[in-house]
Amino acid sequence: MNPLDHAEFRRQGHMVIDFLADYYQNINNYPVRSEVNPGYLVERLPDCAPLLPESIESILKDVDNDIIPGITHWQSPNFFAYFASSGSTASFLGEMLINGFNVIGFNWLSSPAATELEMVVMNWLSKLLQLPRSFSFSNDGDGGGVLLGTTCEAIICTLLAAKEKMLDKIGRTNSEKLVVYCSDQTHVGLQKAAKIVGIKPENVRKVLTTKSTNFKLTPESLNEVILRDVKAGLIPIYLCATVGTTSTTTVDPLAPLCELSSKYNMWVHVDAAYAGSACICPEFRHFLDGVEGASSFSFNAHKWLLTNLACCCLWVKDKSALTKPLSTNSEYLRNKATESGQVVDYKDWQITLTRRFQALKLWMVLRNYGVTGLRAFIRNHVKMAKNFEGLVTMDSRFEIVVPRYFSVVCFRVSPSSINEHHGKNYEANEFNHKLLESINATGLVYMTHSVVGGVYFIRFSVGATLTEDKHVQLAWELVQDQATSLLGTQTPKTASYSKLPEQMESML
Amino acid sequence: MNPLDHAEFRRQGHMVIDFLADYYQNINNYPVRSEVNPGYLVERLPDCAPLLPESIESILKDVDNDIIPGITHWQSPNFFAYFASSGSTASFLGEMLINGFNVIGFNWLSSPAATELEMVVMNWLSKLLQLPRSFSFSNDGDGGGVLLGTTCEAIICTLLAAKEKMLDKIGRTNSEKLVVYCSDQTHVGLQKAAKIVGIKPENVRKVLTTKSTNFKLTPESLNEVILRDVKAGLIPIYLCATVGTTSTTTVDPLAPLCELSSKYNMWVHVDAAYAGSACICPEFRHFLDGVEGASSFSFNAHKWLLTNLACCCLWVKDKSALTKPLSTNSEYLRNKATESGQVVDYKDWQITLTRRFQALKLWMVLRNYGVTGLRAFIRNHVKMAKNFEGLVTMDSRFEIVVPRYFSVVCFRVSPSSINEHHGKNYEANEFNHKLLESINATGLVYMTHSVVGGVYFIRFSVGATLTEDKHVQLAWELVQDQATSLLGTQTPKTASYSKLPEQMESML
Repeated sequence: MNPLDHAEFRRQGHMVIDFLADYYQNINNYPVRSEVNPGYLVERLPDCAPLLPESIESILKDVDNDIIPGITHWQSPNFFAYFASSGSTASFLGEMLINGFNVIGFNWLSSPAATELEMVVMNWLSKLLQLPRSFSFSNDGDGGGVLLGTTCEAIICTLLAAKEKMLDKIGRTNSEKLVVYCSDQTHVGLQKAAKIVGIKPENVRKVLTTKSTNFKLTPESLNEVILRDVKAGLIPIYLCATVGTTSTTTVDPLAPLCELSSKYNMWVHVDAAYAGSACICPEFRHFLDGVEGASSFSFNAHKWLLTNLACCCLWVKDKSALTKPLSTNSEYLRNKATESGQVVDYKDWQITLTRRFQALKLWMVLRNYGVTGLRAFIRNHVKMAKNFEGLVTMDSRFEIVVPRYFSVVCFRVSPSSINEHHGKNYEANEFNHKLLESINATGLVYMTHSVVGGVYFIRFSVGATLTEDKHVQLAWELVQDQATSLLGTQTPKTASYSKLPEQMESML
Repeated sequence: MNPLDHAEFRRQGHMVIDFLADYYQNINNYPVRSEVNPGYLVERLPDCAPLLPESIESILKDVDNDIIPGITHWQSPNFFAYFASSGSTASFLGEMLINGFNVIGFNWLSSPAATELEMVVMNWLSKLLQLPRSFSFSNDGDGGGVLLGTTCEAIICTLLAAKEKMLDKIGRTNSEKLVVYCSDQTHVGLQKAAKIVGIKPENVRKVLTTKSTNFKLTPESLNEVILRDVKAGLIPIYLCATVGTTSTTTVDPLAPLCELSSKYNMWVHVDAAYAGSACICPEFRHFLDGVEGASSFSFNAHKWLLTNLACCCLWVKDKSALTKPLSTNSEYLRNKATESGQVVDYKDWQITLTRRFQALKLWMVLRNYGVTGLRAFIRNHVKMAKNFEGLVTMDSRFEIVVPRYFSVVCFRVSPSSINEHHGKNYEANEFNHKLLESINATGLVYMTHSVVGGVYFIRFSVGATLTEDKHVQLAWELVQDQATSLLGTQTPKTASYSKLPEQMESML
C-alpha cells in the first residue's frame, strides 16, 4: 500500500473532480436545507471502522446515498440563509494545492513560501480595502496582516493583546477590573472570546442599540456606559465595532467610536466579517471611514470573497502587541532565520502553532478573478438584493424592517396585513416565523431569521456564488405564494422581476 | 463570470490533479528543505493584486517558478524533520469533498451530516484506540469526541473547562490561585494556552524531568511540586500528561499520574499528538494504559494517521464541562433541533463558531485504508526507525541519546568520538549542530534537532507517507558521510541495510 502513489492519486483525483462537477451541475435537484431527522446517519452507519480497505468508488456511492441527503447545500444558488460561504473554483484549486503540498508553516523556515505569500497577499488586500498604511507590512512600520480561520480567533488574539498591553501598564492584579465593550448587535463570538481570555462575563458591556439609529452603536450611548464604569473604578480596554452586523448588516460609525475610545486608550477592533468584502468596491469603501483610528481590522474572505472555508484576514497596527502574548519558543524550533530577526514567524500571530498554507487560495482568487472580477461579483449580489428589496416594497402586505446596506434584506409581513387579512388574530412574530418555516419546508430555498428590537423578521441574504437573477425572482414568488396561502388572500399584482428597474424608478 | 461553472471546474480541476500527481512523481528532484533566503518571494511578486483576471495556467506556472522553490517538502520521502504531516490520497479526496460542499457545520441543522459523521467517526476512533467507553458518545454516558484543528485548541478548550469547573466550585475570586502542571518536556502549546485562558504565567509548573527516567514526568516529582503549592494556598486544577513528547517521544506514566491527580480533583489531559496514532496497534496500546483515569485525551490525525492538515481528535468524559464555557446562543441560530435537545451542536465544543466538515476526510481515510492498512502503515514506519536505530548503534562513533519508543530516533556523534578523532577540541553540542547543518545543506534529506538535559541531538523522525527502506538507508549513509568528513576519519564498515535484521539479531 502506497497512500500517495501518484498514479492512483491521479486516477482517484480525476474521479472526485468529476463527482463534484456533477454535484454543481445538479445542485438544484436537492432540497436546499437538509430534510433529515436527528440521528439519521448514526443509525445508517456501522458502529466501528472497517477492518479491511474499501474502494473509493464504494465510498463515493455512500457519499451520494448517506452524506448528501444530510447536507444543507450552502453552494446552492437558492441558499439565502445566514451569511453564505461563497466558494469558487480558483479557491478550490488553491485548497487542492494547499492539501497537496500539505506543509506546516508555523515559522518562516518550515516553508518560506507559505509565510511570504501570506505577507504579500495581506498587503495586496490591505491596499484593495484602502486600509491605512499603518496596517500593512512595511520597512518603517509596525503593522501587518495574518490569515486566521475565523473572526472568533481574530477577536481572541486582539482581545488578549489589548488585555496584556493594559496589564503590563497598570499591573497584573487589576485583571478583574478590565471591561470590554460592544453593542447588543455584536457577534456572540465576542462574549465567547471574553470568557476564553478570562475577562469577567459581567464586564462585557453590550450597549443597547435602537431602531431610531438602525441598531448602530452610537458614541453617545457608549460614552455613557464607559463613564459609569470609569467612575466605578473599572478599566475600559477594548471595543469591538462592527461593519455589517449579523442580524441586519448595520454599520457602526467608526470615526466617532475610535475617537471616543482613544480618550480611554482602548483597543478598537473593527469586525467586518461579512461586509468587509464589499469595501473593495469604491462605492462601499466609505463604510470603513474612520478605520485609521482602529487598532485592528478583520473580515472573512470565506463569507463573500469567493474563498473556501475558513479564511479570516486580520490586520493590526502594532504587531508586537499581538505577538507578545502569543509567542512561544522551544528548542526544537530554533533556527537561524528566526534569530536573524529578518523573518515573520506566523505561529506567534495566532492561537495555534500548526497552520496551513492558506495564502495560496486567496492568492489564486485574487489573480484568477482580478480586482474587476471580484468587484463585479459583489456588485451583482448587491444589485440582486436591491431588486428583492424593491419587490418587497411593491407588495403592500410586506415591510422592510431595517434599511438594506449590502446584500441582506430584512423583511416581514407587516402586522397590519396580518390583522387585516388573517382570520385568526396572529401575533406578527409568530406569523412570520410560520411563514419562514413554510418557505423553507418547500426545499426550494433556504432563508433564516433574526430578531431586533423585539421584531422577528426574515433575512434574505444574497451571497452564494451561483445565485442569479432568476433565483432571486423565484425566491420572491415563493415568499409571496406562501404568504398568500397563510394569509388566505390573493397575491397582489406587483412587479415582474424583468421590468423591475423601470417600476422601481417610477416609484421614486 | 461564473466562479463555480461546472464545466470550468471540471477542466481546471483535472489540470490541478495532474499538476499535483506530477509533483508527487517528481518530489525527489527538489531539495527537501527550501534553500531560499528571507524576502525571496516578496521581492519577486508585484506589490498589488492584478486588476484583470489571469488564467489558471499562468498561475500554475508561477506556482512552479515562485512558490515551489520556497516550499519545504513535507511530503518528500526524505523528510525526517519535526513530526511529519502524513498526507494521503484518501484524505486529499476527503478535503476535495469538504471544499466542494463547503458547508459550515456550526450546529446540527446547518448540515446534519457534518455533525453526525463526526460523532460516528469519533466513536470509531475511540474504539480503535480502545479508549474507555466513558469517552464515547452513548445513550447512557456523558462523553464524546470532537474534531479540532490542533492540539493547542484541545488544550485551550480543556483547560478552560477545568478552570471554569473549579471556579464554579470555589468562587470566581480565586482565579489567581489556580495552578497548572506539566513537565519540562510538555509541548509549549500548554504555556500559550495558559496565557490565553488567563492562568498566571508564574502558575504554570514545568516539573523537571531527568535522563534517569528517560525524561518522563514521575508522580513523585509531580506530587512534591503540588504539595508545595497546596501548602502555599494555591489550587491545582490541570495536568497535561504526554504520550510521545516532542523532543524524544517519551511517555509519561498515565496510571500513577491520573491516580495522583484524582486526589486533588485535577483535570488530567492526555496529549498524544504524535504517538496516539501508534496506539491503534495492539502492541503499542499499553502506552495508553491508565487513560481511563484521565478527563480528556487528544491526538493529531494529521501527524501520523494519513490525514491532511489540520485534524486534532479530542475526547472528553464530561462533555457538559467542556461545552458550558464554550456555549453561545444567538437568535439567528435558534432552531427546533437544538431546542429538542436531541442533537449535538459542535460550535459549543470548540473555540470558534465556524467549522469545516472535517469528519469527511477522516472517514475516507478509515474506510479506504481500513484498520489493517493503517496499522501496517504505522508498523512500517516503526520498523524503519528501528532499523535506523540499529545502524546508529553499529557505528561506534554515534550514540543513541534516549531510547526509541516509536518512529523517532534521537542520536548524536558521541563526545568521546569527537575528542578522539577531531583535530580541534570541539564541544559535542556544537559539533552535532554543525553535523546537522551539513546534512541538511545537501538538500537530500531534512532532519531537525532538540536538546534534553543539556544534550543537543539529531532527531530522525520517520513519518512521511512516501518514506521507504531505501530512503532510510540513504539518509543513514549521508549521516555517516557527513560525520566522516567533519571528523576527518573513515566511515567504518558496518551494517548494510539489507542485511540489517540478521546483524541486529547477532548483536543481541
